[in-house]
Amino acid sequence: MIVFLNGHWVPEERATISVFDRSFLYGDGLFETLRVANGRPFRWIQHWERFEEGAAFLGIQVPFKKASLRDRVSELVTRNRMPDSILRITLSRGPGARGYSPADANSSTLVMSLHPVPPVPARCRVRTVGLCLPSGGPLARFKTNNKLVQVIARAQAEAAGADEALLLNSEGFVVEGSSGNLFWIKRGVVCTPPLEGGVLPGVTRAVTIELCHRLGVDFQESAVRPGDLAGVEAAFLTQSSLGIVNLTEIDDVPMQGSPIVDHLTDGYAAWVLEECG
Amino acid sequence: MIVFLNGHWVPEERATISVFDRSFLYGDGLFETLRVANGRPFRWIQHWERFEEGAAFLGIQVPFKKASLRDRVSELVTRNRMPDSILRITLSRGPGARGYSPADANSSTLVMSLHPVPPVPARCRVRTVGLCLPSGGPLARFKTNNKLVQVIARAQAEAAGADEALLLNSEGFVVEGSSGNLFWIKRGVVCTPPLEGGVLPGVTRAVTIELCHRLGVDFQESAVRPGDLAGVEAAFLTQSSLGIVNLTEIDDVPMQGSPIVDHLTDGYAAWVLEECG
Repeated sequence: MIVFLNGHWVPEERATISVFDRSFLYGDGLFETLRVANGRPFRWIQHWERFEEGAAFLGIQVPFKKASLRDRVSELVTRNRMPDSILRITLSRGPGARGYSPADANSSTLVMSLHPVPPVPARCRVRTVGLCLPSGGPLARFKTNNKLVQVIARAQAEAAGADEALLLNSEGFVVEGSSGNLFWIKRGVVCTPPLEGGVLPGVTRAVTIELCHRLGVDFQESAVRPGDLAGVEAAFLTQSSLGIVNLTEIDDVPMQGSPIVDHLTDGYAAWVLEECG
Repeated sequence: MIVFLNGHWVPEERATISVFDRSFLYGDGLFETLRVANGRPFRWIQHWERFEEGAAFLGIQVPFKKASLRDRVSELVTRNRMPDSILRITLSRGPGARGYSPADANSSTLVMSLHPVPPVPARCRVRTVGLCLPSGGPLARFKTNNKLVQVIARAQAEAAGADEALLLNSEGFVVEGSSGNLFWIKRGVVCTPPLEGGVLPGVTRAVTIELCHRLGVDFQESAVRPGDLAGVEAAFLTQSSLGIVNLTEIDDVPMQGSPIVDHLTDGYAAWVLEECG
């Protein structure tokens, strides 16, 4: 695979960064994951806006302009012959002196790579784990390179026989999966936790809410505790890589399923084709 | 400078890791910072124990045994001719497939590098910032590579004209500086926040508490809010790199200073010489 690394096209085995890169040392950076279909990244503008806003908040310069980077995405797809793939864009503050102060680190690093589209899992069992996300704060708004809570939560869920972790905030409210926003369906209404509880403003979350409006499905934001999910009809995660992922179990309770999930899944696939077709 | 990278001795400009290393992508790893004096790392055993405990919690294999790595520290010091320096040990889970699950990442990366001892700052003004640390949880016990809160807190403090940030937990209690544990002196008693509030169990924090006992100085743990620090006589941070750093201001309030800080600073220097002399 050919990787885009700071403007150069590099075979993956030679795509390396310094051991003094601040994202290696501190997770000092951001990333975005996008679905590429027919050679085009889905929801490019929405991902770019979150990425740029996050970089501004962290004070990291994005070393390429939006239009220029969009052209490189096309070239990356062509070079790798991967018109249907997952695009990952990683930004790091780059190398710097020892210590947390970012004052002298002015040479940011940008990496883009393509990955195969994983199969949609036939079953996805989620489990609440003991690790907490912050209940809010500015960093929750961005996809930062500080993902150890998600990594350990996923590992704990897998160790307990599940496929994915469900994370709570420090007040005990449900926030999201380790790698996707959570939705559930209760009495025909599609629900998801409000952003105020520390929820990542997922691009696919926004697409799903818009889809509910388009399709005339009732939708509401709702702050819940894990116990409140025991009585729901269906639940799913939204991810930029896979779209809508139906959940088959939450904390050992099987979901009966809902035609609304199929309806949204079809609507999502149609939207991807409409935008990238 | 020569860097120790997975068992190899590499010039720093060639000390690189993959862009798919999980510490670059997620901050999925740990580090330790130790003072080296007379060629010997101070409090090696204590740092090693925290490091090993953290690696076990994260499920990352440490690719070298304690005694073997201790020998490499000596060799690193000799090769770089830096008997008085700062040693940084960084552990990463290494490269892995895209996604948070660490299940298939079994090739961890260990880096050791030496850095000059920074001068003890003549003044250190700290400022409370708006970013919060978690109030507890297992990850607070270890020096993980997820340090974006500390990085941004430091940047915000520096932007406000201070030298260092003071971080609170989500309940509003004082936790620590971005790069050191906080102590203060009130009516002759040395105080520091209890670990339960999400405080990193700093090695230099433990040395300082032990020093209070050795020197017959009154000590207590105390949970405080930032306003409670306005009336203190003196305050300092403890860091493995610099030892005891006297604070000259907290949130624009000048500290009058205390001979107890000098007493502890001298005691700390003596202890370093005693162990590493």
